[in-house]
Amino acid sequence: MDTQTLYKRLAQHYLHAIKSGALGAGDRMPSVRKLMALHEVSLSTALQLCRHLETQGWLEARPRSGYFVRHPKRVQLVPVAEPASGTPIDPAQYVGIHERVSAIIAQGQRPVKVNLARATGAPDLYPETELRNLAIRILRNKPNLLTKAIAPGGNKELKNALAKRALDYGISAAPDEVIVTYGCIEALNLALRAVAQAGDVIAVESPTFYGLLQVLESLGMKALEIPTSPHTGISIEALELAMQTYDNIKAVVVVPHLQNPLGSIMPDAHKQRLVALCEQQHLPLIEDDSYGALVNDDLPPTAAKHWDTTGNVIYCASLHKILAPGLRVGWMLAGRWHARINMLKYAQTRYNEELSQLVVAEFLQSSAYDRHLRRLRATLSLQRERTAEAIAAYFPPGTRLSVPNGGVSIWVEMPNQLSSKEVFEAALEQGILVSPGLLYSNSNRFNHFLRLNCGMHFTTELDDALRSLGNIIQSLVQQQRSAAA
Amino acid sequence: MDTQTLYKRLAQHYLHAIKSGALGAGDRMPSVRKLMALHEVSLSTALQLCRHLETQGWLEARPRSGYFVRHPKRVQLVPVAEPASGTPIDPAQYVGIHERVSAIIAQGQRPVKVNLARATGAPDLYPETELRNLAIRILRNKPNLLTKAIAPGGNKELKNALAKRALDYGISAAPDEVIVTYGCIEALNLALRAVAQAGDVIAVESPTFYGLLQVLESLGMKALEIPTSPHTGISIEALELAMQTYDNIKAVVVVPHLQNPLGSIMPDAHKQRLVALCEQQHLPLIEDDSYGALVNDDLPPTAAKHWDTTGNVIYCASLHKILAPGLRVGWMLAGRWHARINMLKYAQTRYNEELSQLVVAEFLQSSAYDRHLRRLRATLSLQRERTAEAIAAYFPPGTRLSVPNGGVSIWVEMPNQLSSKEVFEAALEQGILVSPGLLYSNSNRFNHFLRLNCGMHFTTELDDALRSLGNIIQSLVQQQRSAAA
Repeated sequence: MDTQTLYKRLAQHYLHAIKSGALGAGDRMPSVRKLMALHEVSLSTALQLCRHLETQGWLEARPRSGYFVRHPKRVQLVPVAEPASGTPIDPAQYVGIHERVSAIIAQGQRPVKVNLARATGAPDLYPETELRNLAIRILRNKPNLLTKAIAPGGNKELKNALAKRALDYGISAAPDEVIVTYGCIEALNLALRAVAQAGDVIAVESPTFYGLLQVLESLGMKALEIPTSPHTGISIEALELAMQTYDNIKAVVVVPHLQNPLGSIMPDAHKQRLVALCEQQHLPLIEDDSYGALVNDDLPPTAAKHWDTTGNVIYCASLHKILAPGLRVGWMLAGRWHARINMLKYAQTRYNEELSQLVVAEFLQSSAYDRHLRRLRATLSLQRERTAEAIAAYFPPGTRLSVPNGGVSIWVEMPNQLSSKEVFEAALEQGILVSPGLLYSNSNRFNHFLRLNCGMHFTTELDDALRSLGNIIQSLVQQQRSAAA
Repeated sequence: MDTQTLYKRLAQHYLHAIKSGALGAGDRMPSVRKLMALHEVSLSTALQLCRHLETQGWLEARPRSGYFVRHPKRVQLVPVAEPASGTPIDPAQYVGIHERVSAIIAQGQRPVKVNLARATGAPDLYPETELRNLAIRILRNKPNLLTKAIAPGGNKELKNALAKRALDYGISAAPDEVIVTYGCIEALNLALRAVAQAGDVIAVESPTFYGLLQVLESLGMKALEIPTSPHTGISIEALELAMQTYDNIKAVVVVPHLQNPLGSIMPDAHKQRLVALCEQQHLPLIEDDSYGALVNDDLPPTAAKHWDTTGNVIYCASLHKILAPGLRVGWMLAGRWHARINMLKYAQTRYNEELSQLVVAEFLQSSAYDRHLRRLRATLSLQRERTAEAIAAYFPPGTRLSVPNGGVSIWVEMPNQLSSKEVFEAALEQGILVSPGLLYSNSNRFNHFLRLNCGMHFTTELDDALRSLGNIIQSLVQQQRSAAA
């Protein structure tokens, strides 16, 4: 057995001891010397073992005392509140989000020390070497990949691979039903253009990600923001009420799994009800499932599309957040709008370039994809916990947050209706980029929220950044109190 | 000097002799034996020399007699007619081209022997090896290219390279003004969405390429088809008249260089007048310059954008037809719509993937790009001539065509108002794919035209295909006459 495998096997052994409680929080790990004797391994292997468990967050090193099982801070998280029931829904309105978003993006373009605004994991959480080697091999083996005009119809290998993977989410689709797009954002554009036009009303979750609001704004459509639970997703009662109140809704867009920014996951019964409701009201349901594969369960979540029997659900997804953030490979199943969306895609950007598609197709077909997802989910799970603990420890009282069961973001409610724009600006001064809540609604309802990334390795630098952010919020709260006094 | 260089140097020598008339059409080349003695070269070099000049179209081999300087057929080409002046312009209408186009594309998806429908050159006319090696080197050297989220703002190297290259076309633009898109087609979409909306009227050339008509259809815009000369491009008089007649035109779209399908090139004075007219009428001018680099002159053509002093011209182009048909790298200079188009691009497909951009950027920065373009233009020039000669020789009397001064297509008018759909179907039966004229207008005005590719090597197979096509047209003409009799 080589050293590589050996220390990992030992790590498994101690991880089991920690998880079973045999080694409790705060307990001392056997010393490096003792590990060497116990397992008859070299100094280097014993050290590798401890460092590995340390970077995974299970141990912490204390100067001159050795390694200890990390003490989960067990701070009490106060979850973000459910939307108050019976709150009247704002009238549908044209979206005017772009100016905010581009101002924030422009400000955030300066170099920062810690970027908590992104919605992907650290690059090394993705299979860089494998993807790169695949790309090089494909470039070597496929003649004229860059110089031959792209054949009509799109890449068959990728469509096959995606149709097969869709089965995991309870979707049975023929490869020919797959339309490959430039990211999920193009899929959403095409879906909306297929079913609605400028001036039409689209029901969306509230809060929702600014990408969707920008699409609505760019298409001249109106957003009707439906209250959404941080735990179970869009309120179906509120949506039903909205449908009774407004007769000009043309589509419903939801992110059922790890909603952005809430992190909510719709229970299966809700998804099923939602599909039935939209069908019954003759309203197309657009499902954005960009994050489904990151749900931290043994079984992948079932897509709403699973319950679609009439082609009324347009399923949109992407490999961008789960496999290769540097690639823009999205895809969709357009149900009964297939022919129209196929046409719109062709007229908008033609068929995608081949190389990225072939890379993704080959990776999806291998068992490396499942291994990658398992590893990614496990790492993210730990990072979410540590980030949440740090926030709970450093942010002032009154802060509320939930740790979602998957994904790369945490949605944090700040006390005292603090303005996320002020926090954004003060944090940026210190080289910390956050994503302010005011980007997640056409209203100002979520201005006192932040979406914080938890897809990066929990380093001292990150810990420091979260502490600084906590101090910034604390001092803004105090300023506010002094001003009010 | 290695063999490779030697035979090419000798080829230059004989090419000079042919071009100067020292070796006239029909003259016998010195025999291989004589070439060996004259230049003290091996048999293999002498043969390479002759074969090289043969594939370039300067020599032809006659069985048992050796190589002869090819006799240009000097058939009389009857040019496609100018649009009759004073013809009334059809009222602006919603475009209904997609069904035709997709039916034609679907039919053409079966395997064919000779594809005369495409609008690019043969893959080996593009620098495959260099592009592939570049891609592999970039993949190796740029860490996390596929796994790191794309930084906002788009790739700076490519913007720099494109801004520098734009100088060749008389355009002075800052790198930050460049917006990189997925092909020219996305640029056209964005330009039209920025300046017009569903129901608006867009003035276009007639005939024009179906890609543009599909974009208009997908955006719900109306096309106003302006008569266009096969030699000098859009009729500025007709456009001016149209502007006086219709008050709801929202933009003008032109392809000033190697218009698709006509191959026309607007004289500089026309471009200048057009820019001034649009400016004066407050109508944005959208310039599609996808083919400019293929104009067969020593100096690159000057873009209409050159005469734009107020930001009223939106310049759109692509590397797709001129450098790498397998890549979807387009770009635009959006003039005074920059901010809006930047927003639309971000909301539609985000920033482009990095790899293709880096490959193109590095290639554009090297002298290899100029060498490639020179070689491409020279090869295409010969292929156009040979294709035109074959058409003139094989197609029935009454056929009209012009050989454009650049590009990959020839626009052919068939006699007797023959239906291009019938020709398309009969040719497909014989494994020959052509692009029927009915795709190039919302009307049926160009139904008796074909657009034929001349970007492939002139092989026996191609010669045979053109002969078969001539026979098909001939027999359809005869059928028509018999039916009429």
